[in-house]
Amino acid sequence: MPQTKILLDESEIPTHWYNVVADMPNPPSAPLSPDGKPVGPDALAAIFPMSIIEQEVSSERWIPIPEPVREIFRLYRPSPLFRAHRLEAALGTPAKIYYKYEGVSPAGSHKVNTSIPQAYYNKEAGIKRIATETGAGQWGSSMALAGQMFGLEVRVYMVRVSYDQKPFRRSMMQTWGAQVFASPSMETQTGRDALAKDSENQGSLGMAISEAVEEAASRADTNYALGSVLNHVLLHQTIIGLEAKKQFAKVGDYPDMIFAPCGGGSNFGGVAFPFFADKAGGKNVRLVAVEPTSCPTLTKGVYAYDYGDTAGLTPIMKMYTLGHDFMPPGIHAGGLRYHGDSPLVSQLYHEGLIEAVSVAQLATFEAGVMFARAEGIIPAPESNHAIRACMDEALCCKESGEPKTLFFNLSGHGHFDMAAYDKYLAGQLDDFYYPEEAIKASLSNLPKVG
Amino acid sequence: MPQTKILLDESEIPTHWYNVVADMPNPPSAPLSPDGKPVGPDALAAIFPMSIIEQEVSSERWIPIPEPVREIFRLYRPSPLFRAHRLEAALGTPAKIYYKYEGVSPAGSHKVNTSIPQAYYNKEAGIKRIATETGAGQWGSSMALAGQMFGLEVRVYMVRVSYDQKPFRRSMMQTWGAQVFASPSMETQTGRDALAKDSENQGSLGMAISEAVEEAASRADTNYALGSVLNHVLLHQTIIGLEAKKQFAKVGDYPDMIFAPCGGGSNFGGVAFPFFADKAGGKNVRLVAVEPTSCPTLTKGVYAYDYGDTAGLTPIMKMYTLGHDFMPPGIHAGGLRYHGDSPLVSQLYHEGLIEAVSVAQLATFEAGVMFARAEGIIPAPESNHAIRACMDEALCCKESGEPKTLFFNLSGHGHFDMAAYDKYLAGQLDDFYYPEEAIKASLSNLPKVG
Repeated sequence: MPQTKILLDESEIPTHWYNVVADMPNPPSAPLSPDGKPVGPDALAAIFPMSIIEQEVSSERWIPIPEPVREIFRLYRPSPLFRAHRLEAALGTPAKIYYKYEGVSPAGSHKVNTSIPQAYYNKEAGIKRIATETGAGQWGSSMALAGQMFGLEVRVYMVRVSYDQKPFRRSMMQTWGAQVFASPSMETQTGRDALAKDSENQGSLGMAISEAVEEAASRADTNYALGSVLNHVLLHQTIIGLEAKKQFAKVGDYPDMIFAPCGGGSNFGGVAFPFFADKAGGKNVRLVAVEPTSCPTLTKGVYAYDYGDTAGLTPIMKMYTLGHDFMPPGIHAGGLRYHGDSPLVSQLYHEGLIEAVSVAQLATFEAGVMFARAEGIIPAPESNHAIRACMDEALCCKESGEPKTLFFNLSGHGHFDMAAYDKYLAGQLDDFYYPEEAIKASLSNLPKVG
Repeated sequence: MPQTKILLDESEIPTHWYNVVADMPNPPSAPLSPDGKPVGPDALAAIFPMSIIEQEVSSERWIPIPEPVREIFRLYRPSPLFRAHRLEAALGTPAKIYYKYEGVSPAGSHKVNTSIPQAYYNKEAGIKRIATETGAGQWGSSMALAGQMFGLEVRVYMVRVSYDQKPFRRSMMQTWGAQVFASPSMETQTGRDALAKDSENQGSLGMAISEAVEEAASRADTNYALGSVLNHVLLHQTIIGLEAKKQFAKVGDYPDMIFAPCGGGSNFGGVAFPFFADKAGGKNVRLVAVEPTSCPTLTKGVYAYDYGDTAGLTPIMKMYTLGHDFMPPGIHAGGLRYHGDSPLVSQLYHEGLIEAVSVAQLATFEAGVMFARAEGIIPAPESNHAIRACMDEALCCKESGEPKTLFFNLSGHGHFDMAAYDKYLAGQLDDFYYPEEAIKASLSNLPKVG
């Protein structure tokens, strides 16, 4: 009987993260102030500990994972690599399909891979509290868990509409001891001003970021934490790809193509970058970022300097963007509704070293349901994007007869997304295609510098 | 650094289930018709396949697990055995605490361990459809998953109040391809009669069982499946304890005490029976069934013949019971709200070979939150009962200084129970103690035979 799960012992948890900067043909573009001047490490020190700022600008290939972080990782890592025998049979494809399952983390997704080291470094720096934002709650719950593990107070600004409509992610954060505020809140000046103007304000991710950053910047005992986009976040996520390489080696296989969902880029970077190291060394492996047609940053955006947030409070970064005030349609893969993308992912894409495709919402749920019926696990809507693209390639293999080895990142489970599946099964889910006019409008509003 | 997870390779999935009947000092009491005559295998053949009926009455010590069942088990088994280092530290106990985590199954609990073989044996017998009932949805979703794996149609009668209030378990079943009906439904005569009397009928587990059994009994292509209580269900669950024994052997340890939640008995029997084999051979290991104070079947019930269902449609079985028309208070551990108990568990308890304790609802949630903050995983409310009893023993060890080895079954995760955690954290959860008057009343209503 063929092997289904390729496991590693916890002694095989990687000891170092992989920094893709070391193998990029060109150095990464630096973040700038809106006035065009470089942003130095000092400017970030108000909200991040120095050890994280050092990782953000490092070009060292290998960065050690602190032992206390590896110890917490043992609660759920190494994550299993699955061979999708039943999905292959259901598709009738000669392709071999593998997936790495990150839903084994207590918070249910890969986000915990970075919240744990971020909590550790802040604790080491003497920080007592972390302020952060969350939309649907995946990042907030990951940060709540990590804060609890290292004895940090965690304060989560949760977009009000999610706070009201998705109470279970909120309960999860509270179970792990975090304080959760509906944003806009009375906790910050930004929030109070917004509520003074409109007491029924439903909030937005941009507003929640502003509240968390305000709190972190105004208190010496408090720092800020971010769940994607930045270099150090992608660095922490490379543990996924590093483990996967060990697992492929155990079964004597290696992927021809790798698929991962791509919103802010940490999901994709986490699984793909360690394989990019091989590609840079001449190995033939295709790395495919998968994004929604409704928010097609890489496939339809421009490569330009833009703000990381909607309100224009952050430094500007060179990245693919749809314009910082682009508001993506309300698809259920909330983690992929981001106007920009990781600068590292963007640069590699701009230089033709990685690929990107976009897929429509209904097709992703169709793929997710087919996957669940074959393999059991119900995937997060974000993960369904990678499954869709991988299944499409497996069906091409069926046409061509090529027995390619395909690999995707199953970044999380869908236990807190059943309302979306419910709508899909009831035929009430919509497709959103390329919102051309809205993107044109927001792209006319890029910062003039850079 | 001490080991956290003790893993087995999928080649180490047990090849046989363990049948406790072979090691019981006395043969099990047979089920009877209400008229006092023994119920033969033929009477069950209308709703169960013969291979399952044979398991129900077998006294063979080892029963082989069919290879196609082991193949599906590879999607999530063997489940990990954890050493709870962080919980031990939080309690300051010298005890060693281990837990087996069954929440890794795609449906999120141990119930899948029996739904998969039940689906397999029905498929082998030429059955096309399974009819079953579900309360909160844990069993229904496990059966939906298993049916999908073997190409069986699954029809789930879901208590209407849960169908309306807990839509996400319903969506889960539908994602796996099952049809779900709010019970009472228009699908059966029982349901139509109930709705004719009261179109707003909110349903009950007894009603849902009646509908499922009616459908199974009236169609040759359809069988019934049950998620606990019966001997074959406990047999299938012994895979938990059998794996745990291999895992303890790997680290050279062995439990002094084992704790498991006990409602219908399959959770407890699954983890405890394989250790009972050692106990019968002279080994000193204490097996503790943990039940809610609100439904204290073993600790406050009587050992007598009673119906398995509320409506009095099933054969009568000798078991601990609170009376078949006892209606337990609405605690959040829905899986433990059962008036009776497994006849095998009951007989072992009656003979003084296993122990039982009862714990109150608030104390179980307190334990669950403490566990989640130490170990990450948010447990199902049922599992919190075992955690509470195990923690209490660990605290006794702290008093006495005894370094006992304690082991409990973490039978499922709480991702679909966050509303209960929410109420607990908001101080809105109630305790229910021994409902003496209600139990007295229902015990006066036991069948006169047996």
